[in-house]
Amino acid sequence: MMLVKLGGSVITDKTQYRTFREDVLSRLVGEIVSAGKEVVLIHGAGSFGHVLASEHHIQNGYTDESQIPAAAKVMEDVRDLNLRVMRVLNDGGLPSASLPPSAVATLRSGELDELNVDLFRRYLEVGICPVTFGDVALDSERRFGICSGDHLMERLARELRPERVIFVSDIDGVFTADPSSDPDAMLIEVVDRTILDSLPRTQRCADVTGSIFGKIEKMLRIASWGGDAIVLNGNVPGRLGAALRGEAVRGSRVRGDAI
Amino acid sequence: MMLVKLGGSVITDKTQYRTFREDVLSRLVGEIVSAGKEVVLIHGAGSFGHVLASEHHIQNGYTDESQIPAAAKVMEDVRDLNLRVMRVLNDGGLPSASLPPSAVATLRSGELDELNVDLFRRYLEVGICPVTFGDVALDSERRFGICSGDHLMERLARELRPERVIFVSDIDGVFTADPSSDPDAMLIEVVDRTILDSLPRTQRCADVTGSIFGKIEKMLRIASWGGDAIVLNGNVPGRLGAALRGEAVRGSRVRGDAI
Repeated sequence: MMLVKLGGSVITDKTQYRTFREDVLSRLVGEIVSAGKEVVLIHGAGSFGHVLASEHHIQNGYTDESQIPAAAKVMEDVRDLNLRVMRVLNDGGLPSASLPPSAVATLRSGELDELNVDLFRRYLEVGICPVTFGDVALDSERRFGICSGDHLMERLARELRPERVIFVSDIDGVFTADPSSDPDAMLIEVVDRTILDSLPRTQRCADVTGSIFGKIEKMLRIASWGGDAIVLNGNVPGRLGAALRGEAVRGSRVRGDAI
Repeated sequence: MMLVKLGGSVITDKTQYRTFREDVLSRLVGEIVSAGKEVVLIHGAGSFGHVLASEHHIQNGYTDESQIPAAAKVMEDVRDLNLRVMRVLNDGGLPSASLPPSAVATLRSGELDELNVDLFRRYLEVGICPVTFGDVALDSERRFGICSGDHLMERLARELRPERVIFVSDIDGVFTADPSSDPDAMLIEVVDRTILDSLPRTQRCADVTGSIFGKIEKMLRIASWGGDAIVLNGNVPGRLGAALRGEAVRGSRVRGDAI
């Protein structure tokens, strides 16, 4: 089984509230179906979640009553994105079931607490691809919070032990500097913990799920669960398909900590 | 707490695939918000679920491979309806969270097996209205099946013990005959088990969740869990609001079996 995270920056335009990139997703689904592998999918919330969640500090948990309708609205917005994703998956020949964190997960102080992983296994057994995504979820200490795609990746990697973990991003992988502004930025082909400290301290977009550093921290932990992990560019046709088939592909391989 | 079922025939046009009656729902949400009661909502799948589910016999469980994409498509379609419902609820001033049966429930031989009722309680505590609906769900014996709104009503009534259970229908209540074709049809003001046998054996629409008899059977069981239960016409403005406030309203009161 392959665990694939479709980044919010690939399937949405992260700078504009609720902009879905259907053409990109449709091509990626084609690559998944052609590769013929069993997959579990996670997608980011992108501009359907982060803008409003950030504005109302949903990631920090309850502080005042005005957050209640905002939290409900964020759930609605990410379900809107998820429904569009499900439509492309089903129409593209990958029968899929959506398992929203607000219904299958709970948090404790901002960290993922319970996740009904058994349900993911059962959908796979039936021949239906389980799909989850960045969402609002209940928090036993803070009432609610954000359950990010990376939280989900980590838990699912640990519990399901996928053959390979693939992070589908909008850039080629992890770079020595921001490739959009620095022409000397170089792709780091193998990412491990020693690399983390040498990375530039920049952050491209507001994101309630944390900066690239938090993401790399999570990737390192995810890669520790045995599976081969890779970050690749989903905007370049063919790379996801190649990675699913186990072929060499441009990207950053993540070498996890020894556990 | 009030347990309210918005029938699929009220919020959709049951005879036409995927026709949402947004104006009716919007008014009903206004009545709920004005009444100021804590509610748990269940809505039927109406024409978003029954047409395709019936065509592929999803209610009988797995028989062949062609049902897999169909089951996934039904889930997608009912989420489409649910998203429209959530939008009307949130925009109407009732912050709500959607808990789809395909993510929070499982079946066993067509009957509801597990339902994460605790999650419903936790959303209520946070001040968010939990909403669920008729959906496809996994079945431990038959791979998958239909988790109907009435299945959910029964379990939630038993576990949450609501003050009142309200079935919002497209007719005034339970009649002695089909009121759309028989001018002598009379409203039965109090429905109990002795009434069931005297009812006419007609069925107005194909419905994968069973005929009106099955529904009345379930209503009787639901009413047995202590709460006052009523069937009323949601197409008539004011009736749902009046019932929520505990006022007398035209409809059929359901008297449950003694347990």
